[in-house]
Amino acid sequence: MVDVLRKHIEDIVSITDEEFALILSYFTKKSCKKHQYLVEMGALAPNEYFVLQGLVKSSHIDQSGRTHILQFAMENWWISDMEAFQKGTYATVDIDCLEKTEVLYITYKDKEKLCSELAKMDYFFRIKSSAGNVALQKRVLMLMCATATERYNSLIRQYPDLYQRVSKTLIASYLGVTRETLSRLTSG
Amino acid sequence: MVDVLRKHIEDIVSITDEEFALILSYFTKKSCKKHQYLVEMGALAPNEYFVLQGLVKSSHIDQSGRTHILQFAMENWWISDMEAFQKGTYATVDIDCLEKTEVLYITYKDKEKLCSELAKMDYFFRIKSSAGNVALQKRVLMLMCATATERYNSLIRQYPDLYQRVSKTLIASYLGVTRETLSRLTSG
Repeated sequence: MVDVLRKHIEDIVSITDEEFALILSYFTKKSCKKHQYLVEMGALAPNEYFVLQGLVKSSHIDQSGRTHILQFAMENWWISDMEAFQKGTYATVDIDCLEKTEVLYITYKDKEKLCSELAKMDYFFRIKSSAGNVALQKRVLMLMCATATERYNSLIRQYPDLYQRVSKTLIASYLGVTRETLSRLTSG
Repeated sequence: MVDVLRKHIEDIVSITDEEFALILSYFTKKSCKKHQYLVEMGALAPNEYFVLQGLVKSSHIDQSGRTHILQFAMENWWISDMEAFQKGTYATVDIDCLEKTEVLYITYKDKEKLCSELAKMDYFFRIKSSAGNVALQKRVLMLMCATATERYNSLIRQYPDLYQRVSKTLIASYLGVTRETLSRLTSG
C-alpha cells in the first residue's frame, strides 16, 4: 500500500528504489479505526500525515462549542495542524478519522533530515507546499467573498466523491451553513 | 536596497556573494507610485513580488461590488496571486500599492530555474512556503471561528505598525466588519 506514496512523489519527481526505501525509512505506518484521533486540540502534534486509504477531517471547536471543519483529507492528501507541526506548539485543531484509515506519518525533525539528505525531497515538498498555498488562498477568498452556493460548488469540484462518503451535517459544517441551507443548495 | 532580500534569505540559509549575485540576476526591480497596480483581476499575473520598501494589498471585488482584503504586504513580505502565478491562470485578485513602493519580482519560470540551479533556494522557498501555509491556515480558522474582536487582535499582532499606515476603511475591509464595528473594537 506504501506504493501510493511512491506514485504520489513520482507525479512530481522521479526516484530510484533506493531513494524510495530511504524516504520510507523516515515514515511510520499507522492503522486507525473510524472515529480515532490523530491530533487533539491542546496537545502536541509533531506529525504530518499522508493518507494511504480512508478519510479524515481537521476541525476546530470554537468558544461557543460549535464545530468548524477546516479540511478533509482522503487518499493522496497530506494533513496536519500546520502550526503545531512546524513550530512545536499545541494543536488548535482536532484531526480524526471518518472511516477506517491507513496513514503514513513523519515528524518535523525527520522531514527536515530527509530533505537535507535527499535534495529532491526539498523540491517535492516545496511544490506540495506551494500547491497548499494556492488551495488555502482559494479557501480564504471563498470564506470572505463567496455565496453558500459558490462554496458548495467549489467543494464538489475539490472533493468529487466526498458527498458519497460523509454525512450532510459534516458538509454543512465545512461550508459554514445550516443543514436546512444545505438541503436547499442540493435540491437546486 | 536589495540587501533587504539578502538579509531575508540569510535569516534562513547562508549564501555567498556569488550566490546572491546569481539570485539577484533572476529578479527585476520596480518602483511603483501609490495606487499603482502590480496585479489586476482578470489579467495574467506571472510574477511573485518581494517588498523592499512600502506597502501593498491584495483584494477581491465580489459580484455585488464589495471589496474584500486578502492580505497586506510590507517590507520583507512576499505577495502574488498564488494560483495565477503558479498555474498561469488569470488573476482573481488585484494587488495595488498603498504607499510609494519598491519591489523585486521574479517570474514563475525563473523561480523554478533558480531553484534548480541553486538547491539551497529550493530549501529557502520550501521554508517560506510552509510558513505561508501556517499563516493561511490561521487566517481560515480566524474567518470561520473567531469573533470580530479576536480577528482584530490577531491583525494587530500580525502587522503591528499597520494601523499607523492604512485607513480604518481598509482595516475594516480586511476584518470583514463595518467601519462602525471597527470603531467599537478600537475604542474598547
